[in-house]
Amino acid sequence: MPKKVCLVGSGNWGSAIARIIGENAARLPEVFDKDINMWVFEEEVNGRKLTEIINTDHENVKYLPGYKLPENIIAVPDLLTAVKGADILIFCLPHQFLGRMLPSIKQQGLQPDTMAVSLIKGIDFDENGVVLVSDIIRKALDVDCSVLMGANVANEVAAGDFCESTLGCSDLRHGAVLRDLFNAPNFRVDVALDPHGVELCGALKNVVAIGAGFCDGLKYGGNTKAAIIRIGLDEMKKFCFKYFDGIKEDTFFESCGVADLITTCFGGRNRKCAEAFVQTGKSWDELEQTMLNGQKLQGTLAAKEVHDILKAHKSEDQFPLFTNIYRIAYEGADPKTITQFP
Amino acid sequence: MPKKVCLVGSGNWGSAIARIIGENAARLPEVFDKDINMWVFEEEVNGRKLTEIINTDHENVKYLPGYKLPENIIAVPDLLTAVKGADILIFCLPHQFLGRMLPSIKQQGLQPDTMAVSLIKGIDFDENGVVLVSDIIRKALDVDCSVLMGANVANEVAAGDFCESTLGCSDLRHGAVLRDLFNAPNFRVDVALDPHGVELCGALKNVVAIGAGFCDGLKYGGNTKAAIIRIGLDEMKKFCFKYFDGIKEDTFFESCGVADLITTCFGGRNRKCAEAFVQTGKSWDELEQTMLNGQKLQGTLAAKEVHDILKAHKSEDQFPLFTNIYRIAYEGADPKTITQFP
Repeated sequence: MPKKVCLVGSGNWGSAIARIIGENAARLPEVFDKDINMWVFEEEVNGRKLTEIINTDHENVKYLPGYKLPENIIAVPDLLTAVKGADILIFCLPHQFLGRMLPSIKQQGLQPDTMAVSLIKGIDFDENGVVLVSDIIRKALDVDCSVLMGANVANEVAAGDFCESTLGCSDLRHGAVLRDLFNAPNFRVDVALDPHGVELCGALKNVVAIGAGFCDGLKYGGNTKAAIIRIGLDEMKKFCFKYFDGIKEDTFFESCGVADLITTCFGGRNRKCAEAFVQTGKSWDELEQTMLNGQKLQGTLAAKEVHDILKAHKSEDQFPLFTNIYRIAYEGADPKTITQFP
Repeated sequence: MPKKVCLVGSGNWGSAIARIIGENAARLPEVFDKDINMWVFEEEVNGRKLTEIINTDHENVKYLPGYKLPENIIAVPDLLTAVKGADILIFCLPHQFLGRMLPSIKQQGLQPDTMAVSLIKGIDFDENGVVLVSDIIRKALDVDCSVLMGANVANEVAAGDFCESTLGCSDLRHGAVLRDLFNAPNFRVDVALDPHGVELCGALKNVVAIGAGFCDGLKYGGNTKAAIIRIGLDEMKKFCFKYFDGIKEDTFFESCGVADLITTCFGGRNRKCAEAFVQTGKSWDELEQTMLNGQKLQGTLAAKEVHDILKAHKSEDQFPLFTNIYRIAYEGADPKTITQFP
């Protein structure tokens, strides 16, 4: 039986991935149902409903203008209608939405052996420490949840530029199906049997990018920045091994690891705002207002939450870079202390 | 007995490292003899001998102008005088010089338990394949030879910018002594018990940098370049494991691995000339003439030699990136084939 796919989310990244999975679903009729529902948070654009624009003009004019979506991507404004009967649920939206959404989906009922996959980068935190988005989905829906992470700037993916991605999964059968759904000649998907490691890379790289941005703000050269990135990768690994089970070293050599870290530390808004933090002396709030239209930085938030965990475990000494970044970002430490290691 | 150190070489990188080892030798009189001989290829600069300038003004005005050398760095124009009695021989000069030099040093006689360390990046090749510079030294002198590699652009090291370095050694006792000689607050040395892996990283990264330069020449975005760097690191690993014994995976996470690769793929002349190769269509010879004053690129040479080895072992399929780089550089393949993977 071909599997029915629903893409929950239709922002910049969701729309870019829709171009790939739409084509794959049409190309592999024995594996996937051709039509893919895409849940769209309904809004008006130039007096028309966004879902109507997508279903008529096949373009998400608001979040990915200039790129056609395959005609088998069907925009659906009602969440429960969109997910009904889906065998594969792809989550690609701000994780704050999940809290209200998941119980309704669960209540409506799921197909047997539904598989979920999260494309959401970032982690959440509660009083016990890190909460992985995939675990939120796993627990709320009682299904297996894989993750897709990597050096995947949405507009470059949409443009068809060559890139790679890492599919982190714990169930190889699901990994095989999902790889068929996402893999494309210019979007090469490798499977890693380490969903937690893959997901943590996607969040922790943003902390390192804050440090790389401090280096840029200080106008440090290539040696120093490369050292900060390398030490950052090392602390990412150590953090994962210390606080999670089943982490694999190889994961850090995948696209989700070293490649995503590199792009994020050279491009990316965390790097850019951290550079401005050093150069202008403005507060994070002010930089978010002026540089990000009020959106929140993930790197500073993660740096703070990671630091809370290290502090609770009295492990700051073992993570000197993460600790230096936190102190510069939140405690007024001199940015030059970024390279002070015991 | 304090160990006597001789630095064989006095170019840009040799002079930068002289600043560090000179200070360390003066600071650790129980471990090292204070005075360090530096062999200098004698030449005239503004009518004065370079050795005389160094010994009087304590500055290598030709190769590292603007930075003082410690006064305990003694320039010596005669090779055999310079190395006489040395317990530690540091080689930091173009490897083409070694062929004539090493037999004379051996013939003069060495101290018992002399240790050598090579700071020479690059590999040589003969009809049997890769020849490591450290092996040339090991065999010619019949001594243990360690290597020091990493993201260490000489002028940034001289300026005291923070960076890291990897000391690859097979003898931990030697590693401990050499670490004391090279380590400094802003030049952090980690020891890896994998001299071959460390040295190979220093050479193979230049092949990947040619690929990164092609990406830049094609104006590809961050995703694509990060993917090429990641795949490059992967093929570096695979090449080392396939053709050498005792390689350790951890080495690729050290400064000699991922960090040096990053700086080389973002800065560096291999990257820059490869970018120009795509954009101007000029030959490598012409680019070396106009961009490097006739100096030879290490990356193109290594790409060719690596390809010869892969071809001899019928292993091109297993190294698609190295193979693509070779074909673009030498066989007129379209630069866009850089991202064509089977």
